[in-house]
Amino acid sequence: MALVVQKYGGTSVGTIDRIRNVATKVAGFREQGHDLVVVVSAMSGVTNNLVSMANELQKEPSPREMDVLLSTGEQTTISLLCMALENIGVSARSYTGGQVKILTDSAYTKARIVNIEDSHIREDLKQGRVVVVAGFQGMDEGGNITTLGRGGSDTTAVALAAALKADECQIYTDVDGVYTTDPRVVPEARRLDRITFEEMLEMASLGAKVLQIRSVEFAGKYNVPLRVLSSFDDGPGTLIVSEEESMMENPIISGIAFKRDESKLSVIGVPDVPGMAYKVFGPISDANIEVDVIVQNVGEDKTNDISFTIQRKDSEKAARILEKVVKELGAEGVEVDNHVAKVSLVGVGMRSHAGIASRMFGALAAESINIQLITTSEIKISVVIEEKYLELAVRALHTAFGLKDAP
Amino acid sequence: MALVVQKYGGTSVGTIDRIRNVATKVAGFREQGHDLVVVVSAMSGVTNNLVSMANELQKEPSPREMDVLLSTGEQTTISLLCMALENIGVSARSYTGGQVKILTDSAYTKARIVNIEDSHIREDLKQGRVVVVAGFQGMDEGGNITTLGRGGSDTTAVALAAALKADECQIYTDVDGVYTTDPRVVPEARRLDRITFEEMLEMASLGAKVLQIRSVEFAGKYNVPLRVLSSFDDGPGTLIVSEEESMMENPIISGIAFKRDESKLSVIGVPDVPGMAYKVFGPISDANIEVDVIVQNVGEDKTNDISFTIQRKDSEKAARILEKVVKELGAEGVEVDNHVAKVSLVGVGMRSHAGIASRMFGALAAESINIQLITTSEIKISVVIEEKYLELAVRALHTAFGLKDAP
Repeated sequence: MALVVQKYGGTSVGTIDRIRNVATKVAGFREQGHDLVVVVSAMSGVTNNLVSMANELQKEPSPREMDVLLSTGEQTTISLLCMALENIGVSARSYTGGQVKILTDSAYTKARIVNIEDSHIREDLKQGRVVVVAGFQGMDEGGNITTLGRGGSDTTAVALAAALKADECQIYTDVDGVYTTDPRVVPEARRLDRITFEEMLEMASLGAKVLQIRSVEFAGKYNVPLRVLSSFDDGPGTLIVSEEESMMENPIISGIAFKRDESKLSVIGVPDVPGMAYKVFGPISDANIEVDVIVQNVGEDKTNDISFTIQRKDSEKAARILEKVVKELGAEGVEVDNHVAKVSLVGVGMRSHAGIASRMFGALAAESINIQLITTSEIKISVVIEEKYLELAVRALHTAFGLKDAP
Repeated sequence: MALVVQKYGGTSVGTIDRIRNVATKVAGFREQGHDLVVVVSAMSGVTNNLVSMANELQKEPSPREMDVLLSTGEQTTISLLCMALENIGVSARSYTGGQVKILTDSAYTKARIVNIEDSHIREDLKQGRVVVVAGFQGMDEGGNITTLGRGGSDTTAVALAAALKADECQIYTDVDGVYTTDPRVVPEARRLDRITFEEMLEMASLGAKVLQIRSVEFAGKYNVPLRVLSSFDDGPGTLIVSEEESMMENPIISGIAFKRDESKLSVIGVPDVPGMAYKVFGPISDANIEVDVIVQNVGEDKTNDISFTIQRKDSEKAARILEKVVKELGAEGVEVDNHVAKVSLVGVGMRSHAGIASRMFGALAAESINIQLITTSEIKISVVIEEKYLELAVRALHTAFGLKDAP
């Protein structure tokens, strides 16, 4: 008998029928003797409807009131799921974030969890009840409703699992696990049985969006075994664990992540004196433009070229900012390329294996794909290439590193 | 500068545009220097949608979860109204029932208010904020969400007005006040400037549904001046006050209430021994059938006829129950008439005026309307008549008592 925290996302509870399916699934786990805490999101579409009502009323809706509004979505789901459970004879009780209570700071629309009181939940579990908790929401010290921001329900689930010292936190989604890469690009992409927190972070932040990155960080920090699995099919999913608990011999490469719709901007001929990078990225950051890859290279003439990538939608704005910066810095100019993409190899195993980078570059060269930027970290290597070669590059790397076969 | 509690019902906040209108109205009151607490219902239609989702999942949804579900309706409205207010420069803050907090007992779906903490609200008012409170909901001592049952938002408004010792509680609806009778039946029906709590109770319970009866009782008990007015038109509405604060000389009759779709059931020849009434009405009450008028008359042969009226939809069920009761009691039989209606004269003035009843019977006789049952209380006289004469009777009485002219 284990204590399991399960999280079902918006698609999994998107209709009354699907809520009924989740109830059946939960009842099955109960029958196996597990204690269950179930975290749910708003039914898919509900949050968007609420947001559009808010936007009709106020251009930048009051963050406090936005949280009061949005939190109704999950509150609706918890009560409906409890009804579905009780209808099939499973005793259940719902809690809003505030009722648990999940104490957060007061950063409305992007609050951070500060503490979780587990007394109500423990008492209910002892009484044999399934506890259903509204994801994505909490309450600050003043009793104000807060929300955790995008993907916050995953974070709620992991935080509850950590607070309750649950045996496993299961995240049910519309995919059946984490894949070596996107199966829409590489049909023979393989579901991973296990992946480390660190690899998952790199995969998630690089565009293979299965789990909210914050929840993975949280799980890693508190060492909560996290499993991603499908709410529609049966299957073991992918277990995300700490490196120690991973396999004895890690695979060299776990997966290939990629990101489309990027723009590359380069500031050419920046004088090689301290403070230049700050002068370039300060104004970009002030304009709320998220920067992804940054590469700087000293040229022969004691000037630097600084290149970076951003989401394509921000490209024009960033270019306008850089035109000014170039004048201030006495740099030579700005180059913008709106047709790039990023491909990354991820794997904790690469730390102990030399030659991964050269094998990667070799595989790309064999397909005549030109590499524009390269960055590396301990467990990933990323390259920026012309976007039209993206699929070709991912497939070539998937084959070159033998990812379709289990290690 | 006064402290006013305003309540806007589901129709008044039924669309984004209407929420905007309410905000404009509230802003106008603020400009006049009033302190405002605004209570809102769920947008019209929302509650019904939630109920039908619940019914899809469970035949008799868990009352606790039903309250968790339904309370999201008002929570949505409070946040949207605050956004609409802030958008036009009015500082505002929303509170759910639990946040206020409005403490209730634990009778889910029909909870009673036990206490209201006013500290948050007073602090906000001091800060110059409009306070927007979710109607219809509260929280019990265990922190569970409760709802107050049908029309509970009116009760929330009156209870808040009582707790805050507000100068007036204004209930905005889709009618512009309380009328001498239904204007759809009598076109010259007149809006009353004032009416006493007692009269309003009789008017409301008799079918002139403007205000929830519980809120009127509450207002009467705590002597909260209550005003009913339209959220769509300007106008003074109708002020509901205690008798002492009413006019020096009360009008004899304030209004005519009526109720359609009634059935009359008579148990004939009930032996005249104690306990008979209980034996008749016990099983009716156990079947959750609401009884309206009850009349009992001793006949010449030491047996009673007991007649009563109920809503027509319950007629068949009640008749089946009575068939059994008749055998047990040794009564003669049951008569059912599914085509009756009730008409009532209401007025505190009738206490000090003789001859009202005979004037009423005379007016009906002049139209050849047969009276089937008569009941009287201190401030009302009700008759049950054949339903097809209902409109005729109401018009005749409206004229006979000169209600179209202000007193």
